[in-house]
Amino acid sequence: MQKHLTSIQNPLVKQVVQLSEKSKERKKQGLFVVEGLREIVLALKGTYILKTLFYCDEIISVEALKVFQGNSDHPYELISVSKEVYEKMAYRASTEGVIGLFQTKSHLLSDLHFTTKNPLILVAEAPEKPGNIGALLRTADAAKLDAVIIANPKTDLYNPNSIRSSVGCVFTNQVATGSTKEILHYLKQHHIAIFSAALQASIPYVDCDFKNATAIVVGTEAEGLSDVWLTESDQNIMIPMQGHIDSMNVSVAAGILIFEAKRQRGFSLPD
Amino acid sequence: MQKHLTSIQNPLVKQVVQLSEKSKERKKQGLFVVEGLREIVLALKGTYILKTLFYCDEIISVEALKVFQGNSDHPYELISVSKEVYEKMAYRASTEGVIGLFQTKSHLLSDLHFTTKNPLILVAEAPEKPGNIGALLRTADAAKLDAVIIANPKTDLYNPNSIRSSVGCVFTNQVATGSTKEILHYLKQHHIAIFSAALQASIPYVDCDFKNATAIVVGTEAEGLSDVWLTESDQNIMIPMQGHIDSMNVSVAAGILIFEAKRQRGFSLPD
Repeated sequence: MQKHLTSIQNPLVKQVVQLSEKSKERKKQGLFVVEGLREIVLALKGTYILKTLFYCDEIISVEALKVFQGNSDHPYELISVSKEVYEKMAYRASTEGVIGLFQTKSHLLSDLHFTTKNPLILVAEAPEKPGNIGALLRTADAAKLDAVIIANPKTDLYNPNSIRSSVGCVFTNQVATGSTKEILHYLKQHHIAIFSAALQASIPYVDCDFKNATAIVVGTEAEGLSDVWLTESDQNIMIPMQGHIDSMNVSVAAGILIFEAKRQRGFSLPD
Repeated sequence: MQKHLTSIQNPLVKQVVQLSEKSKERKKQGLFVVEGLREIVLALKGTYILKTLFYCDEIISVEALKVFQGNSDHPYELISVSKEVYEKMAYRASTEGVIGLFQTKSHLLSDLHFTTKNPLILVAEAPEKPGNIGALLRTADAAKLDAVIIANPKTDLYNPNSIRSSVGCVFTNQVATGSTKEILHYLKQHHIAIFSAALQASIPYVDCDFKNATAIVVGTEAEGLSDVWLTESDQNIMIPMQGHIDSMNVSVAAGILIFEAKRQRGFSLPD
């Protein structure tokens, strides 16, 4: 018989809340929480394994959940919850009535797989806010980048705010994380040219050739990139700034650089 | 003798709070509030007239205020305030200890003045959030656009969140507001080609020539542009979206379009 939760004292409720709030718990349990129909569909399309699906039948019908059929290759437990339980579980003021508990994935550099000899990659060093990671992943999805690499991440990918601000693009991109040193080593080993966004010793981005294997590297708005990215890069690049302010929003800057590379490549994709 | 405010009951305190919070008050009084050293300097550089400067001498020294000298052509009243008064006045959790009361400006289309025959203009229709206006203005500053026009604005430019998220770029751009109908009329009258960002009947932005007088028009993320922009445009343009998600962050999209125009123009500026 299908489980039905009505008590906010149930240990499952506490587990979901903890997984939403605590990076440490996500790491320990190897699980994370996804809210919303669209986001859950994207996680399934990204071959994340759904363990448990909670839904509140006062908000969403079982019929509506059929959108998940055909997207999940694995059996999962379906649990209906009362409105009170749902509101306790839901991290954001979401009204969709559905929450998925998923298995985390490994995001090692060695897991990256390219279908082209000339991948286009975004490297973001230590984005301060989950919102910035989300915006970068959204742009990466639009450009269908071959991978996004987060250097020295300050938050994990499964932070509910990262998932939310990426509108699920955290699942549609191939994402790896690592230390700056590991990533530099990986890029050099794979003969991927490193273009670091910086003001020092840089040339305008429009004067660069991004058609071969390319990594575009951006830092934080406040700090920029750490020095090693500037000294170890193949080329430092800058967006000419002609106004009164000397810094750009990092996701806008990344969008401009990525789409210049896309333009040079004729928006072509690997076969 | 210089005024010193220690009572949060003082009418000036109430006035500053009201001007921060209420668009209607800003309109009625023709005044608005700017917090922070950098933002006040940018407002002065943007030839806004400073009426009153409040500073909290427990946070900032009178010496530090000298940065304003040479930037203000008009006399202004200098008032020191106690920490309690400052904290009551400050809209954001700002710790800089300085607040300026400025005169608003007119932002009519007829006020726009171009120093080139081929201006590059951004038109943004009804940005939902002050944060979005701020991000667009920040990109417009970096590109040194000839003007930014806000169609059917849902918030005024002097909203503290617009000022904050623009990091003062609300003052460094030439900005006009108007209804969509007025703006369309203005652009056509001035022979400025209209490129509307839309999916319908559009061509990739990289196939367009932005070297002549150009207006790049963007709508909201949720609604896009209203129909008249699509039917009255010279060309509808789109950024090829190759991923799973069908919309981009509006400030990222605007950045990509604006900087493609800048690239085509060789980043040249009017003499």
